[in-house]
Parts: sequence; C-alpha cells; structure tokens
Amino acid sequence: MIPIWADICKNALAQDLGRGDITTNTLVPASQKAEAELVAKEDFVVCGLPVMVEVFRQVDPRISMLPDLPDGDGIRSGNRICTITGPARGILTGERVALNFFQNLSAVASLTKQFVEKIKGTNARIVDTRKTTPGLRQLQKYAVRVGGGYNHRMGLDDGVLIKENHIALAGGITAAIKLMEESVSHLHRIEVEVENLEQVREALDAGAQAILLDNMDLAMLEKAVAIAGGKALLEASGNVSLDSVRAIAETGVDLISVGAITHSAGSRDVSLLITT
Amino acid sequence: MIPIWADICKNALAQDLGRGDITTNTLVPASQKAEAELVAKEDFVVCGLPVMVEVFRQVDPRISMLPDLPDGDGIRSGNRICTITGPARGILTGERVALNFFQNLSAVASLTKQFVEKIKGTNARIVDTRKTTPGLRQLQKYAVRVGGGYNHRMGLDDGVLIKENHIALAGGITAAIKLMEESVSHLHRIEVEVENLEQVREALDAGAQAILLDNMDLAMLEKAVAIAGGKALLEASGNVSLDSVRAIAETGVDLISVGAITHSAGSRDVSLLITT
Amino acid sequence: MIPIWADICKNALAQDLGRGDITTNTLVPASQKAEAELVAKEDFVVCGLPVMVEVFRQVDPRISMLPDLPDGDGIRSGNRICTITGPARGILTGERVALNFFQNLSAVASLTKQFVEKIKGTNARIVDTRKTTPGLRQLQKYAVRVGGGYNHRMGLDDGVLIKENHIALAGGITAAIKLMEESVSHLHRIEVEVENLEQVREALDAGAQAILLDNMDLAMLEKAVAIAGGKALLEASGNVSLDSVRAIAETGVDLISVGAITHSAGSRDVSLLITT
Amino acid sequence: MIPIWADICKNALAQDLGRGDITTNTLVPASQKAEAELVAKEDFVVCGLPVMVEVFRQVDPRISMLPDLPDGDGIRSGNRICTITGPARGILTGERVALNFFQNLSAVASLTKQFVEKIKGTNARIVDTRKTTPGLRQLQKYAVRVGGGYNHRMGLDDGVLIKENHIALAGGITAAIKLMEESVSHLHRIEVEVENLEQVREALDAGAQAILLDNMDLAMLEKAVAIAGGKALLEASGNVSLDSVRAIAETGVDLISVGAITHSAGSRDVSLLITT
Amino acid sequence: MIPIWADICKNALAQDLGRGDITTNTLVPASQKAEAELVAKEDFVVCGLPVMVEVFRQVDPRISMLPDLPDGDGIRSGNRICTITGPARGILTGERVALNFFQNLSAVASLTKQFVEKIKGTNARIVDTRKTTPGLRQLQKYAVRVGGGYNHRMGLDDGVLIKENHIALAGGITAAIKLMEESVSHLHRIEVEVENLEQVREALDAGAQAILLDNMDLAMLEKAVAIAGGKALLEASGNVSLDSVRAIAETGVDLISVGAITHSAGSRDVSLLITT
Amino acid sequence: MIPIWADICKNALAQDLGRGDITTNTLVPASQKAEAELVAKEDFVVCGLPVMVEVFRQVDPRISMLPDLPDGDGIRSGNRICTITGPARGILTGERVALNFFQNLSAVASLTKQFVEKIKGTNARIVDTRKTTPGLRQLQKYAVRVGGGYNHRMGLDDGVLIKENHIALAGGITAAIKLMEESVSHLHRIEVEVENLEQVREALDAGAQAILLDNMDLAMLEKAVAIAGGKALLEASGNVSLDSVRAIAETGVDLISVGAITHSAGSRDVSLLITT
Repeated sequence: MIPIWADICKNALAQDLGRGDITTNTLVPASQKAEAELVAKEDFVVCGLPVMVEVFRQVDPRISMLPDLPDGDGIRSGNRICTITGPARGILTGERVALNFFQNLSAVASLTKQFVEKIKGTNARIVDTRKTTPGLRQLQKYAVRVGGGYNHRMGLDDGVLIKENHIALAGGITAAIKLMEESVSHLHRIEVEVENLEQVREALDAGAQAILLDNMDLAMLEKAVAIAGGKALLEASGNVSLDSVRAIAETGVDLISVGAITHSAGSRDVSLLITT
Repeated sequence: MIPIWADICKNALAQDLGRGDITTNTLVPASQKAEAELVAKEDFVVCGLPVMVEVFRQVDPRISMLPDLPDGDGIRSGNRICTITGPARGILTGERVALNFFQNLSAVASLTKQFVEKIKGTNARIVDTRKTTPGLRQLQKYAVRVGGGYNHRMGLDDGVLIKENHIALAGGITAAIKLMEESVSHLHRIEVEVENLEQVREALDAGAQAILLDNMDLAMLEKAVAIAGGKALLEASGNVSLDSVRAIAETGVDLISVGAITHSAGSRDVSLLITT
Repeated sequence: MIPIWADICKNALAQDLGRGDITTNTLVPASQKAEAELVAKEDFVVCGLPVMVEVFRQVDPRISMLPDLPDGDGIRSGNRICTITGPARGILTGERVALNFFQNLSAVASLTKQFVEKIKGTNARIVDTRKTTPGLRQLQKYAVRVGGGYNHRMGLDDGVLIKENHIALAGGITAAIKLMEESVSHLHRIEVEVENLEQVREALDAGAQAILLDNMDLAMLEKAVAIAGGKALLEASGNVSLDSVRAIAETGVDLISVGAITHSAGSRDVSLLITT
Repeated sequence: MIPIWADICKNALAQDLGRGDITTNTLVPASQKAEAELVAKEDFVVCGLPVMVEVFRQVDPRISMLPDLPDGDGIRSGNRICTITGPARGILTGERVALNFFQNLSAVASLTKQFVEKIKGTNARIVDTRKTTPGLRQLQKYAVRVGGGYNHRMGLDDGVLIKENHIALAGGITAAIKLMEESVSHLHRIEVEVENLEQVREALDAGAQAILLDNMDLAMLEKAVAIAGGKALLEASGNVSLDSVRAIAETGVDLISVGAITHSAGSRDVSLLITT
Repeated sequence: MIPIWADICKNALAQDLGRGDITTNTLVPASQKAEAELVAKEDFVVCGLPVMVEVFRQVDPRISMLPDLPDGDGIRSGNRICTITGPARGILTGERVALNFFQNLSAVASLTKQFVEKIKGTNARIVDTRKTTPGLRQLQKYAVRVGGGYNHRMGLDDGVLIKENHIALAGGITAAIKLMEESVSHLHRIEVEVENLEQVREALDAGAQAILLDNMDLAMLEKAVAIAGGKALLEASGNVSLDSVRAIAETGVDLISVGAITHSAGSRDVSLLITT
Repeated sequence: MIPIWADICKNALAQDLGRGDITTNTLVPASQKAEAELVAKEDFVVCGLPVMVEVFRQVDPRISMLPDLPDGDGIRSGNRICTITGPARGILTGERVALNFFQNLSAVASLTKQFVEKIKGTNARIVDTRKTTPGLRQLQKYAVRVGGGYNHRMGLDDGVLIKENHIALAGGITAAIKLMEESVSHLHRIEVEVENLEQVREALDAGAQAILLDNMDLAMLEKAVAIAGGKALLEASGNVSLDSVRAIAETGVDLISVGAITHSAGSRDVSLLITT
C-alpha cells in the first residue's frame, strides 16, 4: 500500500537535510557500509517502526531495517528494537528524523496504553481528539490505535460533531440536529456536545446518536448514563487524567476522550549505536 | 516576508479539513459573522501568534486576528491573548489547527524560558537540538528564540558537528577535523563531540572551534573548561534538567543544549470563546 | 473559504494553456478590455458558477464575472447566465476551461434534478455513487446536491460500505459487521451490500444500520422494506433509470443510488459571446 | 517512458482514498491475496488499459494486471478484458478509480470509432476539440486516437487557431493572419475560423493554411471546398452528429471536428469480479 | 495574466533563501524601509524586468519596482534601469536572485540583438534552439524575442523536427515524412534535417514544409536555396558566429538558428545601490 | 542517496517534453533499442555525469548510461565520454536536456579549473559566489568543487556575510558584528565586507572572523594582509580575471571569489551519436 505518511517523512527530512549533510558527506566515504542497533533506554510501547523504515528508504533505498518486534509490543529498557544495515552515510543522515518520529509515536502509544490499562474491565473506550501535533494527525491517531485506544473522527470531514458554538449559531440543539439529518450523508452518526442534563434530554429527543458530555463531574455523568438508557452513545470529555479515568469509566459512559495522549505524550528515550 | 511556515500550516489544515468541515458548513450560514476571544487557562510565555494569523488567513482571508500582546510576553491565566473576527465558518473551521500550533509553540517557549531563567547571571546560553517534532523544525526553533534560548544548527546542512560515529568512521578526531577544514566553506565553525578529557585535548590541538562535551559530570565539565582556556567554545549536552542546569552553567561552559525544550514541551492550555 | 477546487482548476488550466495561448497573445493587445456574455443554448439547471469565477481569477485576477442567477436555478435557452468583464486576453484564454467545467457540472445537476422530480412525494432520496469522473469527485458531488440529490460517502475514508467482496474475504456478513463495529470510529454508520432477502435478515440481526439492496426487482425490494421494518436504512442500487426510478421509490426504500448522474451526464450547451 | 498521466491517476486516487479505505483495511487481512477479472457488460472499443495498470501500481506495486487484448480492440459483452492479481486490499481499494478511468476512455474511443466508421471511404478525418473533461485532456485525446480519430491541437500553446473573437479584436482576417505570420514559430500552420464564403476567400488570399468552416450547411461547405481548391485544409465544425457526419464528409472537407466524442461519451459498462 | 515563470522564480528563491536570510533578518529591523537603484555597468539590451518584479513580489508583496524603460530598450553604462522601494529586508534578500535572472536574460537579448543587427536587410530570421539553460527555457526564449530574434519550437511537443537519428530509425526521409503526415495534427508544419543536396531534393519531393540544412558551407547553402525554389522554408544551422552570420543570411535561407544566444550569453553587469 | 537535483531534472524535462515528444513517438517504434555515444568536441573538465544519468532515468528507467571517466577528469576532443543504451525513444527524447546540463556544468568545472591552475603554489583558494544561474545553484556549486574550487555559502541561510548595505542599515561595522554575535548560532563564522583599510582595522577590532576585501587593488590587498596578520581570513573580491588572479593570490589573501566561473562559463561542445 502507498505509505500514506510518505509526504510527512519527506517534509521532515527536507527540513533536516536541506542541501545535504555536510558533516557526513565530508567525513564518511560513499562506499562505507555500517550496521546499527536501536536500543530502548526506558520501558515503553513500541510504535512507528514502519515510519522509520520509510524514512531510511527515502534517504537511501539500499538501507534495510529489521525490527526485533512489531508495533504495539512493549519493550524493556536495554533491549534492542531493530537493526539497521546499509550505506553508513544514509544511516547517519537519516537517524535523527527517524528517531524523532519513533520517539514521539512510541510515547503516544505508551501513554494511550496507560489510560487503556486503567479502565480495563469497564465498557468504556479511550478515544483520541483532534488535539494532535500539527502535521502528525494520521500518525498519532495510528499510535493511539497501537496503544489500544480508538479513533474519534480523523478530521472535520469524516464525522459530525455539533459543538457548543454550532448550537448557538444554528439556533439550538434540536434545530441543529434536524438540519444535520436533512443534509448529511446517511453513513454518518450525529454527535452533539452538551453541558448539562437538560441538554442531554433535548439531544436524545432530537434523535442524536451520540452525545459528548463536556466537563461533567462523576455524579452528573452517572445521571446522564441513566437518562440516555442506551439510546445514544455517551462520550465523557474534559481534563481526563490517569488518576480520574477509572472513575469516569465506571459511570457507564461508552467513550472517554483524552487530548493529552496526543498533544502531551512527549518522547521516549532510545539510542542508536553503530556496531560495525 | 514570505511566511516560511505557510506550507506547514497548509499541510496541517489539509489533514484536518480534508474535503471540508461538514458540521460547520451545514449548520452555520456562509454570511454569518462572529467574534471570538482566545483566553489563557494557565500562565505561560505566548508564542505562535503569527502562525495562528497565517492559519486563519489560509482558511478565509477575511478573518482578522488582533493580538493583545506580542510573542515572547508572559500571560496570566484568565487573560485574553487575542480577538478573532470575521466569517463564523472560517473561525470555527480553523480554530483547532490554529490552537494546536499555538499551544505547542507556547509550551516550547515557556519551557525554554524556565531553563533560561535558571542560568541567569552565568555566561552560558541555552541552545536547542535537532530533537524537534517532525515537520515543526523551524517553528519550534523560533519558539526557542522567543523563550530566550539560542539555536544550534537548523539542520544537517548549515552547521558542522562531528559526532562519535563520524569520528570512528573518519579515523579519529584529528583526522576528521583536518578533513573537514580542507573541504567545508570558510564560513562554518567546526564542532566536535567528545566523551573524555583526553579527547578535549586532542580536539583543541587539532583546531576545533567548538567542542560538545557529551554526558560529562560537573567535575569533568569544570576540568574541560580549564583545559580549553577559552580556545574553543564548550557545549554541555546530555539529560539536562531544570534541576541540574544551574550547576552545569556554573562550570563555565558556553552552551548547554537541551532536547526536552522541543521534544517534550507538551501543550499550554487555552480556550477559544465565541463572544458574538 | 479556501476554494477546495482551486487545484482542480489549476491542473485543468495547465493542461490547456501549457506554455501560453499563442494565438491570443499575438493578436490581442495586453491592454485590450472586453465584455462577454454566457448564454444558455438549451434549458437546464445552472451549476458551476463559482468554479468559473475561480478559473477566470486564476487566469487573470482582474477579470470579474457577474452571475445573473445562482447555482441551482433553472435557466431557459437563450437567457443570459453571467457577464464577464476584464482584460480581453484572459477572457479568451480562460473561456474553454471555464466552460468545460460549467457545462459538465450543469449537466450533472440537471440530470440529478430529473431523477429528483420523478420521485417527488415519496420518502426516498436520490444519492450519488463513487462512479464520478476521475479528478472531479468533489465538484460532481456538489452538482448532485445542487440538483437536489444527496451525497453518499465522498470517498473510501469517510463512510463504511461493506461490499460483496469484503463479505467473502471477511467470512460472512455477521463476521464483517462485528469486526467493523469493534474497530471503526463511533461516528460511522455501517452499511452492508446484500443480494437477497436472507442476507437482509442476517444484516439486520448483525446490527447493520444501513443495507444496500443490489440489483433487486420491485417485488424483492418491497419484501426487503417489510422485513427491515425501519430498523435500518435501505438503499436500492443497480441500473436505475428515469423510467424505473419512481416505481423503485414507491417500494418504500430510503435511498436510491444512481451512477449515471455523475458518469454519464454529458454536457449542457452554452455560448460565450464577446459583446464589446 | 514516464507515464505522462501519473499525476492524473495520483490526484484521482487521492480524491477517492483520502486517509485510506477504512472498510477494506478493517475487513481484509494485509496478507490476503486475490485474483480478479474485468468483464465487459456491453460491446465497445477497449481503451485505458495502461491507465488502469498505473492506478493499481500506485495503490500497490505488487499488483499485476494482465490485459487479454490491447487498447483499440473491440470487445463483446461477456468477454474478459483483463485479470488482476495481488494483495486483495489493493485490488479492492483501487478498483473504482481504475474503472472510472477505463469506462470513460473506452466510451470516448467507442464513440470516436462510430464516427470514423460512418465516413469510411471519404477523404475526411474525424478530429477532436478542446471540449474535453477538465483534467483528462491528454487521456481523452489519446482515446480519440485509439478510436481512429485525429487530434486537433492539444492546447492553446501548440497550435494556432484564429477564432471569431480574435478576428474582431485584431482588425479583420487579413490583419490577423499577417500579424500571426510575423511572430509565430515557422513550425506552426495557421488556421482561421470563418462564417461565410466571403471570409473563406479572404482567408485564402491572406495565406491561411487551414480554415475552420463554422456551422455551415452542406451546400455552403461544398462551395467552400470548390473555392479553396486544395490551397488550404478545410475543417467542418459545429453540431456534427452520427446522422449528419457522412454527408458532411462527402462535401470534400479535410477534417470534421466533433466535441461530443470527448464531452458526452459517458461510460461503458464493465464488472470486476473477485475470482479467488 | 498568470506569470508563467512564477514557479521558476519560486524555485530560484528557495535555493537561495533556504530557511531565511540570517544576516539581513538579524541586522535590519523589520520596519526599516529602503530605496534602491539598479544601474547598468555596461551597454546592453534590457530584458527581464517583469521577472525581477515577480521575484521581489514573492519575497515581499509590499516592494514596488519602477522600471525606467521597457524590456527591449538599449541602455548605456551608468544609466538607471529601475528603482525599488519598500521594506529593506525584502530588497536585500531578493536582490541576488532578481539580478541573476535579469543579468542572464539581458545577456541573451543583447547577444541576439547583435546577430539580428548583422543580418539587417536580408530576408533571414535569427531563431533560437533547444540549447537553453535547464529550467530557463521559456524565459530565455522570451529574451530571444526581446532581442529581435524568433522562436523555433518551445519543446518537443509543439513542433515537428525530424532529425538525423529519426530518419535512420524510421527508414529514410520519405518514409519519415509520410509517417508524420499520417499521424500528426494538421496544425504542424513538418521540418526535416538534411546533410546534403540529395537529401534536400528528397525532402522536397516528400513534401517537407521546412528543411534544416545542417552544417553546410556557403556554396552548398546557395545551391540548396536554388533547389528549394521557395517550396519549403530553409533553416541554416551549425556553429553560426557573429562573423559568419551575414554571409549565411545572404545565401537566401529563411532562418538561421544559433545555439550560442541562449547557452553562452553569460551575464550583463549591473549594480544595485541602496539610496536611502 | 536521494539525488538532491532530482526536481531540477524533472522541471527541465517538463519544460522540454511538455505533453511528449511528438516527432520521436511517431517515428520510432516503442520496442526499438539503440546505443549512443557521447563524444567531446573540444578539451575540457568533465562534470555532470550523474545528472545525465538521472535525466535519462527519469525519461525511461530502462536506459543505462556508462561513463568512460568520472566527473573531474579532463577529456580530449574526440574522446568518448560515455555510452548510453536502451529504448531508442527515451535516448532521443532525453538527449537535449541531459546535454544542456552536462555542457554547462562541464563549462563551470573547466573554467574553475583554469583559475585554480593559475594560483597553484599560493595559499589562496578560489571560491564561488551566489551569482549562479537561477535554478542551478547546487549543481553549479558542485561543478566548482569538481573543478578544484571551494564553495562560499550555499545560500542566505547557511553563512553570515555582512555587506555594505547591512552595515549602513545596522549602524556601522562594529555594531553589526556585535549584533550578529549575540544572535546567530555559534557554528557560524562572521564575515564582513569592507572597502578600505580603516574598515579592515575596525572589522578586526570588532572580532570579525573573515573579511571580504571589495574591489581593492594589489597594493591595498597587501596592506590588508599585513594589517590582519592572520587574525581573520581575507577574501579578495571583484572583477577577478584569469589575467589578474595570480597577482591577487600572491598578495597573501586566503580566498579569491569569482562570479564568472558560474554566471559566464557558457557551454562545452559535445556530440551524441546513435551507433546502433
């Protein structure tokens, strides 16, 4: 399949390489081969191996990267993630960009996994948001799936979410849902954001198929679950943390969305060593 | 000036908008105007206002954004960052991408500023690394400057840094520096990465103009400063934290590079409210 | 809003202009102004005016085009569609590409309208398919809406349609639906293609939210409607013509998809006259 | 040779795939292989096989497509056009776009062929126009050749055609031809559009090498042929149909241009079946 | 009109600016305005003013450039070519690229003019070749016209020139011309390259409309002119110099093609001075 | 490695091929193979072989080009440069663009070599400038290295050169250097352009690491060398010719920059012959 992230890799490489790696091209002969190992410096969930493969392929198609485990597996600090063999120039030149992708995506998958573990046994799903790093939307959403989470919509065009501002501009929840039903493709479920229980009832009456419960406390979430009675999917949203997520899941909501798993996952520590 | 980040904004918007914002386009009339405010939800250093301007301009050139303060100023939680006025559709459609940029860049500037404050009064500079989020190199390096830090090289083509693997492949520090001097433009200073004091001496003898001291403890850094005696710029590198940075600066090194200010700054909290 | 079709116009112009209009550039002085009228040569539903505006804008931003009516209105043969004023070179150079868009989109809207008129008073909607002219997907889907039809999914990424081949490869209807439910975003409804009534029942039992009834005759469509009993949306599909569409709608299906409205609409006849 | 239509395929795929085929990627394992047959559902002239090859290659280079006959051959309803083997995902994902190209190009070639057959035995050639589907210029012009027709100019830059509006703005036929001769490359023949016999004479006197006879009836065409006496190529143009084309050819004109062969050819019916 | 060279300017700027002008951006305040003059340092024919306008526009649309004379006029050393006013940063940043274009294009126009002057009073035209600087085809061909020369074909797609190698592979001059006549658009004249007088006769007999006389001496050119007797256009080609061109023109050939006017024109000397 | 010039080749081919080579595609069968030789028609330094390889690869990947010698070697008139084998169409179609690159780059390398030979035995280096052909920056700078010269900065972003206009706008040499030191990455050396000896002294006092001596005569250059005393690199610049360069080098300057080696090298003569 066309790696849908090929252009993302290309842009990141262009930003780093510019007119070329003047240090490596001067010091390393074009014919020099090398072998390198990528090693974990902490424990985490591995994610982004195919992106690294693509980065190295773009730098030099003669480089081959052999993963020791697949995306989604956990790794222990000190263990090897993959080996990379081929022209030494390409390995050194591509290293930083490849790692920048891998370290962030592994961080996203790892943090997602932590949230997923916390709610084990409940009926809720962890879902992501559109609060992703600019330019990395698809990749970070992939990392969320790798970490055991689920994707909310990918963008503004593949899912309907009627938010507070839309409601205000469209003249209320009922009007907004009706207008939406009359125009959007029949393949979309309609979700609406609400702030209180009265709005939950209005959304249900208007036929909403999913309801985003914005910043509600546990008590209110429980009441919303009771009111909905399975007639619509319920999504809890707003400042969800590893500490609070379990209790939220136990209210009976179907989905819990967490912005931090994409916008604040940071970077997992690894090290690339030339072995030959 | 050509906003050098125009393509970065365009790609991020394309990822989010895809074929268009189906919710907004259905619910909000094309002629509807709106006014919105961006408000800080915590204290931080503001960064990325011109990027938000560009994002909104690309979505709809009729949107105007008026900042209340410039990039680099600190803001208090609850205070207004800027107002945005224009067609309601464009404001709602562009909001998330604009904020995704702003929240990350403000986080980078804010974290940089924390490091810079810690070493106030010493002669050291905080410099960034190439450990940036893929695709955001120039923007995050700009945020580092906004936070009071300095840029290391922008990419592999505008600065010479001879690293451990180059040294191994080129046959030693002296050989590598000589080879570099013989081929690179006279406008580049040559920096070499070293791991111990013997290498510091070899680098100085070979004429290195800058030396990266990799993962040295404070005692070794002090000795390196003494050995160099001002003949080359010294850069401390490796797992620098807010706790350790002051002591490192006091060893007398010229530069302290910190990867975390770009790869793990996360996101600063803000809120966009439609006011009309 | 960013005209999402700007690149489509740009490519079409590039194919026609190549290195420039050698006839016009030689014979028409750069300073010559002109005024032109676009006139209908038959009756039809107008569609594509904003695309023509964009084409002329790209050729020369000083050209202004003033429509006499909006997209979606019917026009009679002999009536004026719009006036175009500005530099004569640009008008002559852009004419053919602008008209090529407009004539096809008006044909799509007009043919759609004919189908829509036929089923007036029933509960069914006319929906399009992915059988669009390569490169004109969004524009032709827009023309369908202008003609009073509804859009099915825009592409393979914004809607779930489990077709015959998917069912075979996934191990049956029930297995396919379950697998889909477990992985896809909660904002998607799941539609499945079936060929007989037994499959309708299986799809309903498995929880399908929409069912595509492929090439069924009227009797079978009626039975499917009875079986579904409103528990899922029903879409009739397969060689629907202006002659057969009314009877199909009267079976009680919710949606009737027609490939011909996009792939075989042809072109509506117009004429551009320089008036000054 | 560089497939000059590679970008056209890429754009069409991008419009259909967006962020990826969510149905297929969920239901069909990445390792699944499949074999498919494309079968004609009516009689027509086959055209566009290399474009389908390119589409599938872009979706997944491991797919191989083996045509049963070359472009330009006629096929009977029920006969196989080609087989496609490779990863099942890629075949299902690429199918619709590949077919959209093939069905339109085969329709163009088939309709062209019908016109060409009608004038068999005369000295006239069927030529196309610039009334092509936006974005498909080169491909549809190729289909015209495959159907036995000839190409007029490919765009505004590779041929000189002085039309009515140019004549008006340049100060008459003679002035326009002289101006053109004085500036254009010696490799271009100059063609001028005329509306009556007096203009035919003026064009000949001014040295036109080809004359487009716009919307003339048969009697006038015959007179034009007599007047020209072989001193210039004559092209009949304007609402030519399968019914009228033979009589037009028999007037003795050299070329008959037909817009409908590209803008209203529609789509030929085929069916793709997974066989394994 | 769309400046057809906009992308050429963009690429040239991208190569020079990379991530931005670090000297100017550091030393010159963003608000600083400046005024500059471009002055000729030798005598030449001015060409490329609109390209400079475009370059400065791309760097900063607030820069305005006011030419003192149009493309095609001669200028004396010491005289002013244009003034440039606007933000100082943009003027300094864009200067080098703008001048690189202007100095080469003026050189092409000036050298062309020298050839054109030499053959004044004869019936011959100076024409260019495809031996242009890679990437500057259209611009250098424009400069040839500005210098009083004529364009041969712009590329391989807008003109037919049957060269020695084609003749060999197609089975002779007559076969090649016939094959060409049978397939190419009627708007193309067919030119064939010949090496001796026998081939001139064969080309004429086969109906060639233009003949390129490759590397013939004056005596042979004269004989070719006599043989052709006006039945085809004759083009002399091969190592034409300012010294030899007059005698060649006086043989009576219609066209003289000169590669040097594009590939070896060099650069005309100018100087840009900040005056305020 | 990614050929960094791939896009440059692509653009040049696009300008020449447009919609395709109509002569070759008509006259040469697709299956025809050919073998060609490239032969020098004068003595020169060979440069650009990998660029020709890339051009032919883009035209048809089945073409293989086998060089007889590497870039940088001298060749004698009449000797073979390389052989090219593969599909005849691709060889004929790609020939002109491939040669346009090669002939210019060989000219740049050859002229550079002439300058380099002239100063043999001195301590000076020949360096290039930013006066390159628009679009060919990296390639011509590569040719300079191949000819034995050195690169100055590649663009405005990878080196600091404070020129006359910057000094004026920044408030003097000392102020400019200080400002620069305070903001630019520590990996850049700072060079400043001066016009007289007083400025040389000021630049040295302010800590300039390199000084460009603009248009100084030999006597002044010698004095500048004496004043600098090795504390900064000295670059002589301004109308350097093959006649004057030796004397300039003997003044003791470190670098001599020559614009003519890139902007006025012209083209070296070669001939491509089909041998089979």
